[in-house]
Order: sequence, then C-alpha cells, then structure tokens
Amino acid sequence: MPLTRIDLPRGKPESYRRTIADVVYDAGIAILKAPPGDRFQIIREHDPDTLLIDPSFLGIERSADALIIQVTISVGRPGEVREAFFRYIVDELHARLGIRPSDVVINLVETQRDNWSFGNGVAQYAVMDRAKQG
Amino acid sequence: MPLTRIDLPRGKPESYRRTIADVVYDAGIAILKAPPGDRFQIIREHDPDTLLIDPSFLGIERSADALIIQVTISVGRPGEVREAFFRYIVDELHARLGIRPSDVVINLVETQRDNWSFGNGVAQYAVMDRAKQG
Amino acid sequence: MPLTRIDLPRGKPESYRRTIADVVYDAGIAILKAPPGDRFQIIREHDPDTLLIDPSFLGIERSADALIIQVTISVGRPGEVREAFFRYIVDELHARLGIRPSDVVINLVETQRDNWSFGNGVAQYAVMDRAKQG
Repeated sequence: MPLTRIDLPRGKPESYRRTIADVVYDAGIAILKAPPGDRFQIIREHDPDTLLIDPSFLGIERSADALIIQVTISVGRPGEVREAFFRYIVDELHARLGIRPSDVVINLVETQRDNWSFGNGVAQYAVMDRAKQG
Repeated sequence: MPLTRIDLPRGKPESYRRTIADVVYDAGIAILKAPPGDRFQIIREHDPDTLLIDPSFLGIERSADALIIQVTISVGRPGEVREAFFRYIVDELHARLGIRPSDVVINLVETQRDNWSFGNGVAQYAVMDRAKQG
Repeated sequence: MPLTRIDLPRGKPESYRRTIADVVYDAGIAILKAPPGDRFQIIREHDPDTLLIDPSFLGIERSADALIIQVTISVGRPGEVREAFFRYIVDELHARLGIRPSDVVINLVETQRDNWSFGNGVAQYAVMDRAKQG
C-alpha cells in the first residue's frame, strides 16, 4: 500500500536506484507491516535544475546527492511507527549505498484505507475491513 | 477537481495514453459528479526500471502493462462512490483499450475543498461554499 | 516543509522555471511562515500530450502556458492563509514572469506535521512539538 515517488539526481547506476526502491519496500514490510509484495514505486532522475533541495534547511547539511522520497500510506499508524519508518530507510540507505543520512528527505501523505485499488476495480482493503466487521 | 497523475510503461501510442486520461476524466464526471471540463492530468511514461509494480500483490496477477493512477480529489465522497470510481475506470479501460482489469492500480488522496485554485489565485470552491452558506 | 511539484509546458528558459520555483518558495516563507531555507521542489517539463489542462474549466480561460503546482504542506493553516498563498503565487508569477493569473492551477495536500523528515531519519517537527509540550 505504500505508493512511493523517489526523485533523485541523475547519473547513478541502475543498481543504486533499485536499491533505494528496495530499501523503501523493505521498510514497508518491516516497519509498516505491509503485506509481502506491496511494491508500487515510481522513480525519477533529475538534472540539478529540476530537483531543488535546500543545502542546509534546519541546520542539516545536504550534498548534491540529496534525494526526496514521498510515500502515500494508509492512515492509522502511530507517530512512533512512522518515525521508525524514517529511521529504517535512512539507516539502510547508509548501510547499503553509503548515502549520507542528512541527504534523505522523506514525506508521508496519509490516506484512508478504502482509497486503494490494487487491481480489478476493487477497493481491496475496504472489502477486507467489511469482512472483519462481519 | 481531480488532479490525476498517470504513470505507465513507455511505448504505447499517444492515443492509448490519451484514452486512459479520457477514461479518468469521464469517471470524474460520471461518478464523482465533477463539473464539465474538470481535467487536470499529468502523464508519465516509464522504462521498466522506473515504474516498479509487484506482479502478484494480494494475489492479483499484473503484467508488464500494469499502470498506476493516483488521483487527488476533494474529501466528502462516501466509500461507495469512490469504489464506483475505481470500477468505472477499470471497466472502461478494458472496454476501450483492452487493458486487463488486474493491471490497473488506483490510489486516491483526499484534500479539503478549499485547497484548490483553478486560476486567478482564487480558491473557487471556498468562494462557492461561502456563498451557499449565505 | 512545503514539498512542491511543478508541472509546466516544455520550452521555457531555465530562468523561467527557476523563477516559478522561487515564487513558490517565497510564498512559503512570506505567507505560510515556513522557516528560511524551506525549499524542496520538483519540476517537470511536458509536451502537450502529457500535461492535460482544460482551457476553460469554471469559466477561466487557460492558454498553452498553463501550469499545475501541487504543494504538500503541514495541516493547520486557516483557509484565509491558504487563500493568501494562492494569491501571492499568482500575483508574483504575473509580476516577475508575466504569467497570466488564469494560467496558474494550484492544489494543496495537507499532511500531519510529524510526517516530515528533513534528514537523518528524524521527524524534526515531531521532536520540536514534543519539546514544546515539555
């Protein structure tokens, strides 16, 4: 259910971009407890003039490698879980790709569970939630 | 008022992409009762490495033609209406383009009515809503 | 904290695109009282077939230069402030670039303050808000 948009500087190898996407996917599984296979990700590479990221906002030093990850998730996770999601992504991007933690900007947008259709024109979570209510 | 982002695989004819956009527009008019002319749509074609869609999440089989449609709409429509919106899109994409229903991933993000300006720096729905309240 | 996506027609000089981004940034500082340096902006140029904007929705005449600005902001600003944000952007785009006010479509998406991480895997606003509560 996370729908992820990753906007990053142009010029990295495909494996670098794919690993960023893998990390966000893994964070969804490990922290948000998304079901296995919950991967819906859109990546875009940018020249410097189309990805504008402040180099020092809030005293955090960002390099030319800074990137933005915007993730639409279902509402209902406590703040601690969402903060753990941020930490997981940043830690793993550092561990797997050497990306500086200060270079990772993340934004979440929360939406109702019945705002997702994963195919067939059905709102799968709405159907599941109705079934649970009996 | 729907603002639509369509992310799909590269290599389809322009008419194919345009018809997808037409279907989402028509669904807004027919199901969401959007005013005529309510078309604000952003399309992007992708190589396989920038559009990552799981081929079987929730047991739904998706092909290399799978696409993601993310639509920002005003809050306030009941779940049944939003589910009908999903169905309309999927049914019409199948009827008009032969797109497999299992290949269509849709996500809605809801926003307040006064979060739209369709020109001139005016929040047109806020103005209308104030006028109605008298 | 505003995360801005600007989708505009292809073919303008880089300075034109940069000035649009500057205007949205300045509006964030001046009207939303965003902290200095709060710039996270993603720009995309489009051919006419990937940016579909109705030429007369709600009776507003839009030209081939029409553009869409979608901004994710933190929830909590009164409607008057968000309307002033629209006006500021439109007025300044007109003053600095001659963009017709009727050509500027803006949409806001509101998100909780703790849905932002500006680096280091920390939800900086959540931390600030907890500190304020003592």
